[in-house]
Amino acid sequence: MAKLRVTILGATGMIGQHFIHHLENHPWFDVEAVAASNRSVGMRYGDAMRTVHIERVPKEIAELKVCPIDPKAVGDVDVAFSALPAEVAGKIEEDFAKAGITVISTARSHRMDSDVPILIPEINADHISLIDEQHKRRGWEGAIVTEPNCTAAALVMPLKPIHEGFGIESVIMSSMQAVSGAGYPGVASLDIIDNVLPFIKDEEEKVEAETLKILGNPKRPAEFKISASCHRVPVLDGHTEAVFVGTKKAVEVDEVISVMNEFRGEPQELKLPSAPEQPIVVRSESDRPQPRLDRMTGKGMSVVVGRVRKDPVLNGIKFIVVGHNTIRGGAGNSVLSAELLKIKGYL
Amino acid sequence: MAKLRVTILGATGMIGQHFIHHLENHPWFDVEAVAASNRSVGMRYGDAMRTVHIERVPKEIAELKVCPIDPKAVGDVDVAFSALPAEVAGKIEEDFAKAGITVISTARSHRMDSDVPILIPEINADHISLIDEQHKRRGWEGAIVTEPNCTAAALVMPLKPIHEGFGIESVIMSSMQAVSGAGYPGVASLDIIDNVLPFIKDEEEKVEAETLKILGNPKRPAEFKISASCHRVPVLDGHTEAVFVGTKKAVEVDEVISVMNEFRGEPQELKLPSAPEQPIVVRSESDRPQPRLDRMTGKGMSVVVGRVRKDPVLNGIKFIVVGHNTIRGGAGNSVLSAELLKIKGYL
Amino acid sequence: MAKLRVTILGATGMIGQHFIHHLENHPWFDVEAVAASNRSVGMRYGDAMRTVHIERVPKEIAELKVCPIDPKAVGDVDVAFSALPAEVAGKIEEDFAKAGITVISTARSHRMDSDVPILIPEINADHISLIDEQHKRRGWEGAIVTEPNCTAAALVMPLKPIHEGFGIESVIMSSMQAVSGAGYPGVASLDIIDNVLPFIKDEEEKVEAETLKILGNPKRPAEFKISASCHRVPVLDGHTEAVFVGTKKAVEVDEVISVMNEFRGEPQELKLPSAPEQPIVVRSESDRPQPRLDRMTGKGMSVVVGRVRKDPVLNGIKFIVVGHNTIRGGAGNSVLSAELLKIKGYL
Amino acid sequence: MAKLRVTILGATGMIGQHFIHHLENHPWFDVEAVAASNRSVGMRYGDAMRTVHIERVPKEIAELKVCPIDPKAVGDVDVAFSALPAEVAGKIEEDFAKAGITVISTARSHRMDSDVPILIPEINADHISLIDEQHKRRGWEGAIVTEPNCTAAALVMPLKPIHEGFGIESVIMSSMQAVSGAGYPGVASLDIIDNVLPFIKDEEEKVEAETLKILGNPKRPAEFKISASCHRVPVLDGHTEAVFVGTKKAVEVDEVISVMNEFRGEPQELKLPSAPEQPIVVRSESDRPQPRLDRMTGKGMSVVVGRVRKDPVLNGIKFIVVGHNTIRGGAGNSVLSAELLKIKGYL
Repeated sequence: MAKLRVTILGATGMIGQHFIHHLENHPWFDVEAVAASNRSVGMRYGDAMRTVHIERVPKEIAELKVCPIDPKAVGDVDVAFSALPAEVAGKIEEDFAKAGITVISTARSHRMDSDVPILIPEINADHISLIDEQHKRRGWEGAIVTEPNCTAAALVMPLKPIHEGFGIESVIMSSMQAVSGAGYPGVASLDIIDNVLPFIKDEEEKVEAETLKILGNPKRPAEFKISASCHRVPVLDGHTEAVFVGTKKAVEVDEVISVMNEFRGEPQELKLPSAPEQPIVVRSESDRPQPRLDRMTGKGMSVVVGRVRKDPVLNGIKFIVVGHNTIRGGAGNSVLSAELLKIKGYL
Repeated sequence: MAKLRVTILGATGMIGQHFIHHLENHPWFDVEAVAASNRSVGMRYGDAMRTVHIERVPKEIAELKVCPIDPKAVGDVDVAFSALPAEVAGKIEEDFAKAGITVISTARSHRMDSDVPILIPEINADHISLIDEQHKRRGWEGAIVTEPNCTAAALVMPLKPIHEGFGIESVIMSSMQAVSGAGYPGVASLDIIDNVLPFIKDEEEKVEAETLKILGNPKRPAEFKISASCHRVPVLDGHTEAVFVGTKKAVEVDEVISVMNEFRGEPQELKLPSAPEQPIVVRSESDRPQPRLDRMTGKGMSVVVGRVRKDPVLNGIKFIVVGHNTIRGGAGNSVLSAELLKIKGYL
Repeated sequence: MAKLRVTILGATGMIGQHFIHHLENHPWFDVEAVAASNRSVGMRYGDAMRTVHIERVPKEIAELKVCPIDPKAVGDVDVAFSALPAEVAGKIEEDFAKAGITVISTARSHRMDSDVPILIPEINADHISLIDEQHKRRGWEGAIVTEPNCTAAALVMPLKPIHEGFGIESVIMSSMQAVSGAGYPGVASLDIIDNVLPFIKDEEEKVEAETLKILGNPKRPAEFKISASCHRVPVLDGHTEAVFVGTKKAVEVDEVISVMNEFRGEPQELKLPSAPEQPIVVRSESDRPQPRLDRMTGKGMSVVVGRVRKDPVLNGIKFIVVGHNTIRGGAGNSVLSAELLKIKGYL
Repeated sequence: MAKLRVTILGATGMIGQHFIHHLENHPWFDVEAVAASNRSVGMRYGDAMRTVHIERVPKEIAELKVCPIDPKAVGDVDVAFSALPAEVAGKIEEDFAKAGITVISTARSHRMDSDVPILIPEINADHISLIDEQHKRRGWEGAIVTEPNCTAAALVMPLKPIHEGFGIESVIMSSMQAVSGAGYPGVASLDIIDNVLPFIKDEEEKVEAETLKILGNPKRPAEFKISASCHRVPVLDGHTEAVFVGTKKAVEVDEVISVMNEFRGEPQELKLPSAPEQPIVVRSESDRPQPRLDRMTGKGMSVVVGRVRKDPVLNGIKFIVVGHNTIRGGAGNSVLSAELLKIKGYL
């Protein structure tokens, strides 16, 4: 099978580099072009990176010449992974879609468009039908697929089997988010050492809206009540979230642990290359999950749940979940999405 | 006015030293005796401290000889501040009360006794009537008064004016607690650097039960539903709590800010020496309160609230509160309690 | 006595705000104008600060309108405290000096000019004679006085009495510097959590050259050999330095401790408002100085030394010193310099 | 080839667990017995560990029953890896050696015995001849081999090729050590967050003496002058050291980089299972080595050097080195030592 040709938009930044890492030696995809802003264009990729965030840049990638972020410049590619900042992503991603390229984006610009999926392959693989809608409605040959905000990504995973098994009525979530979630340079050390930052701009609104969209059907968001409070803590990687869930059906702790541990999605059935064996791992120790110890579970693609307890306020359960914000909530999930699209014939 | 004579039980540990700090140059109290475990007895206090947690030990206190933790050994004192660990506090504090001494304790041993108040002077000054109950029921000449768990201490403060103004129906609280809350040496650096610990033994149960007791009347706890999730973060001092509150009456954000900012208790009316001007300070900046920046507000005796928002799940409001765990949730609140008892004629 | 009129150049940044703090209620100086870059000009000062680094901005200062960084715009002032970045400070500071204003600068631009003093009032008060040189040579009515790099500031203090008492032959210094030394936003949290950064651009060269200049006479730097290695650690404030010193005369540990503890400079003799009682405090505990515990000694104007030991390699002594990088190595030292200039008739 | 049978003394602690990790699937060694203090004896190993410091305990090891630390109890083993605390290691390790077992110890108890090697296989493989000396002098059938203090382990590696190539005259070293160097629970978070601890008991003396012993010949320590200053910083793993070296022969930066990069020892020639390809890796970036980024180089068995510069004080060079304190300075080096002993016929 010939490999698909891919490009990375915003390739020199932190998330762009994560894409390089997740695509290294990928069995289905080959990075053919790296696109970045004007100040890097024309430079050797290895020289264009101001700060290096990954252990190793493959030699052949380091030698690529950075091209402009333009469908014509990147040449004949099948997929564009977009690590663009939200301020510019909206228009550029549309240009790529018009040009017949499928864009898989970490930017929030198109997430809430009614015909654009926010895709977590284990959870809402059926949402890729929205791509047909895009083709029809927008007349694009390509398409835009987004992946969720990193905090929403960790949250929806354990909510999915609860929603399926017991029906969710309400969710309250309080997060302790890692600094890598703010990109690079992101959070100043002067702000976060010996401190908690109780505010992340637009984060709560994104978490609430995206969670409902992901857990709904392609046409309509889920309809439970949800309220988030988002905070930054001095942790490098891995978002920790305290989740309180009210359910329609009465629920026991053991049942919740079972449906979580047993939860599998299409990526597992289809044995996609980036799929973790188990999307949700429930640990039984009293003091887990911890971001430093658990963030790399399933190569960062599993979320880890612990401390499942009854919740007397919402009449349901409460638990803690840790998810790797730049893998499951970033480049890793995007690559998994591309794998799903490929196997479903959308690439 | 002659000063009252006080002793500190467990004087050489971290909390014991905090008492030394809060009683230095106190207008009403004089530290006359410092009591500690056997390995320190007979030593000069200044030499008995293995690790020094406060900036300065007053010279006259440093020269005191450490005495055993025994009512006879401490001599003729009016008040004993107990910084004893819970494992031994229960029995010893009773011995002191029997001996006619009023014990003000940071230990949890007697907090849930029906005739023992958990006292936050701004909130439940009326609970000191339970001391009469103790005298009657137990036949003690002294008494035991406790102060709350440090996480509960920060939580109940903003809940009080909400409860009075709008009636609380339900509370969900998720904490980000400082390492000093675990005492010294407490949390190992190997456990907490670049990490969150999602479990603090017995903490959630304590927070839930003590909050209801403090906000109730002397005879009966408050009756709303409450659920806590407690976590440790890499912060030195100051507990941060994300609080979601459902109210009986409809409530607006502005109203809540008003009742919090205007809240005053007996310590403010009586101008007690350790009373902060304003027990609850609401900040309007979008990114406050932060533990490092706000923990010393009102010399650590005020709690700081921010980000008051509507909460759609509990039909009420949500907000963040920061309180200094070793001052308002520790020695500072205990000294304020002693001041209240004194002015009310209980010492 | 009428107060002198002062302005702050670069008033909205972190160091500019520190100047506001150190000049609040100053008995000799009044902040009359705050100057900043174009994007802030015309705004109310309190609104122009993007991030607030100090506990409180005095009301009358918050109400000042930000003016351009131009001698004409700031009006009739006697002193300009410059918190400008080095890239622009050079030319602007000259313009102010030409306009008859004495500039006291934290920027490095003019530090190594032969007729510009790097002033630490306790150490080289005699270097202010270079101002006469400036007047003569440059024809300015004003003058430029600089203060040292923050790491040099902490180093030269304990070296001074050693140099006077025993003659320094060589110095090796290895630093562990706080993140605030890099300004704001400065060091990214992603770079420094769980890490050490072994490189600070130009820092070693600055420390070496400035140390020799400060410890020399006004015309000629000191002539010992010096070698520095500079590193950043996850500490908010306070630079820690391991110092190895070879001396001409044989030296005993006790002698060094004595000359350090007894060291006083003109600021102490003249009782200048910002002078600490003791510029060097030697602590006898085996595990001091520590930046968190010792940085605020003497309101941040004292440096704290500990662990004075014989050094077998350089035939002298080794010790640890902690100094507050934004106070003694920043705004605090600048204000003390202004006080010295005033009392010596240079303002 | 039959695998050698090994035991771990002090198997339940942090270092003991590291041994488990480094011996998992080892081609030459099989863990046959785990020995620990009385409170664990008789328990299943997996249950006896109070805190788990490694990612995974192999199932067959978890099922082992903990035996007493006694040569008779551990049964017929060839090697005992000792992770015992220094207070008890001395006598126990002798008992094992008398019983015919070769002890490889991380404890300092026997390091300075004249007939006991401190072994870093790349550096002083010839020191294993001291084992013959032990057999002769002490009449033991077994032997004791020690590994160095973790700070010395990282220091001697780059010093070795310098010493061989240019002759060392003097060394000054200032360390920034990780908290894992203090074991578990070790350094309290209350002591190290936002702080540097400038003192580690006995560390400087150990570093100085062990460095000379390791770099000498089996009978006599090296004879250059050495002075260390040791400090703890908020880093989890990986010691960073600023090293200043005076050499007998004039030395250029490029030469030093060459001899370091080219340095190989017997483990590399013999292709021992735990030997890294390159014991010293010199990085050319201006801001490396950094402990978080470089500690796992060569699976933690390589040290990483950077910033090689001329040193004007000692007439030689200065550089920074990072070494993984619990791998090269702990269990990893011990296992490599056992491999060397085995291949040399000492087991």
